[in-house]
Amino acid sequence: MSATNAGRIIDYRVQRALARAISSVENRTASIAQAEAAFANAHPPREGVPAYVLGVTGPPGAGKSTLVDKLIGRFRANGETVCVIAIDPSSPFTHGAVLGDRVRMQQHSGDAGVFIRSMASREAGGGLAPTTDAAISLARLAGFDVIIVETVGVGQVELEIVSVADTVVVVTVPALGDGVQTIKAGMTEIADVFVVNMADRPGANQTALDLVHMCHESGRDVQVLQTVASVGQGIDELMGALAILRAAPESNAERTVRFGVVRTIRDLAVRDALDALDGTYASTIFEQLASRAITREQATRALVAHLRGE
Amino acid sequence: MSATNAGRIIDYRVQRALARAISSVENRTASIAQAEAAFANAHPPREGVPAYVLGVTGPPGAGKSTLVDKLIGRFRANGETVCVIAIDPSSPFTHGAVLGDRVRMQQHSGDAGVFIRSMASREAGGGLAPTTDAAISLARLAGFDVIIVETVGVGQVELEIVSVADTVVVVTVPALGDGVQTIKAGMTEIADVFVVNMADRPGANQTALDLVHMCHESGRDVQVLQTVASVGQGIDELMGALAILRAAPESNAERTVRFGVVRTIRDLAVRDALDALDGTYASTIFEQLASRAITREQATRALVAHLRGE
Repeated sequence: MSATNAGRIIDYRVQRALARAISSVENRTASIAQAEAAFANAHPPREGVPAYVLGVTGPPGAGKSTLVDKLIGRFRANGETVCVIAIDPSSPFTHGAVLGDRVRMQQHSGDAGVFIRSMASREAGGGLAPTTDAAISLARLAGFDVIIVETVGVGQVELEIVSVADTVVVVTVPALGDGVQTIKAGMTEIADVFVVNMADRPGANQTALDLVHMCHESGRDVQVLQTVASVGQGIDELMGALAILRAAPESNAERTVRFGVVRTIRDLAVRDALDALDGTYASTIFEQLASRAITREQATRALVAHLRGE
Repeated sequence: MSATNAGRIIDYRVQRALARAISSVENRTASIAQAEAAFANAHPPREGVPAYVLGVTGPPGAGKSTLVDKLIGRFRANGETVCVIAIDPSSPFTHGAVLGDRVRMQQHSGDAGVFIRSMASREAGGGLAPTTDAAISLARLAGFDVIIVETVGVGQVELEIVSVADTVVVVTVPALGDGVQTIKAGMTEIADVFVVNMADRPGANQTALDLVHMCHESGRDVQVLQTVASVGQGIDELMGALAILRAAPESNAERTVRFGVVRTIRDLAVRDALDALDGTYASTIFEQLASRAITREQATRALVAHLRGE
């Protein structure tokens, strides 16, 4: 038995049903509740240990997909099934560079214990809740042991990953010159593990030390590890750190709830705003704007006050 | 007089004051209103034509900074002063690749008619309003003719650029295989001009045709241009398209207001949520969560209902 084909699998019929269910939510041919109910009805969930949701985030080019690829191999070697949900912020434009990343994981595409799905982060220009939650929930129903959610860590996307993941790994690369001073203090609240990937490049030790110092200052117990994911270096240590965090799954419960609340409130507010902009009050305001009876600033202020009930 | 040092300049004392004012807002040593008042008091705004705010957005690696560099040169050759506000989504982590982009614009750093500033997009994990608005408002006060706001086009960032820009240029690159089908229809509502950059690569004509078709379907009059920014090809055509759009500055007023309202409502809702999570009701809920009297889902639902007044 090869290391990438060990242990449990998820029946291909279940995997195909999962792919279809995610698509139905993405294409809005079914509501999230409908898709979940239909899937659970056709494929009754197995009893047992709940899935471990691992968030992997970091800037473009930090080697997240290569790292995830190595983690898939290790989880499979441990006999666990793995679902990867790769949230792709560039897809509103073009697959471009991101598609290349996904190709690196395709070595696992023939392994029935692994399911990989790319998703767009959200509607262009809008702020509606993405379908990521639904995909995770469906992957849980399908019985995957590990669900890896990979995102490019830019702004709002972090809110999503922290509100769904049991553990968050923040991947970065050795920083030169101004060091890690641009890593915001807020990141130490989000990360459970910092990975300095491409650690064979100059500056890796200093970057790791700077991160340790920053985590120490914030009073949180965050592991800082160095990896060279492309050659598998440091992956054992990362798997060891994850095993410890996984053994205490409720330690991040408050954080998960905090970010989930902020995210839900934000998305509901955006929905309210979009609805109100289609209403009669808004159309009156837009008529006044078009006739230049009011300025853009006055129009914005009036609509915000109306929406806030002020 | 060289092409990159033509026409008006902005006095270095005013530029230094602008840099300090933006920093004071970023570092929260002054409120936005305080920083604006102090700046306007020390440097009374000139009368006359309001600044033209040009948004440039697109995926990482599409050549936005190279394109902006060429545009700076053309605006300067026309005798206009240019402020570039480059919004940098990767700065919560590290300057990394983005720093390299900025270097390309440094040829203009000795030109007193050009001011370039990089800013982080927003607080990591939070959703608070960024300081971009303040930077634009301060650049207006400083008297720049053209304010270019450059962002990586991912999700929420677009909301910001559309709510501030008179004109939005969406930069993309030739797509192979599945073409531009992954460019969401919503992008045609945002873009005033599509630029297919790196048009010397295979697939440029097809990508441009696909974009024309997509814009036609959405019923909006969006120009599609091809450029090779690195060698200056297509920049004349882009400047021509911008001149026409600039002559009708109020044509996008409703769009600007719509996106501004959604963005403001979203940011206020996030602020409300963060405030409420520090309140007494939330601490009761978090106690129940810690003692496992309630699940994460129950805690999230209770807090969302409380915040929504349900």
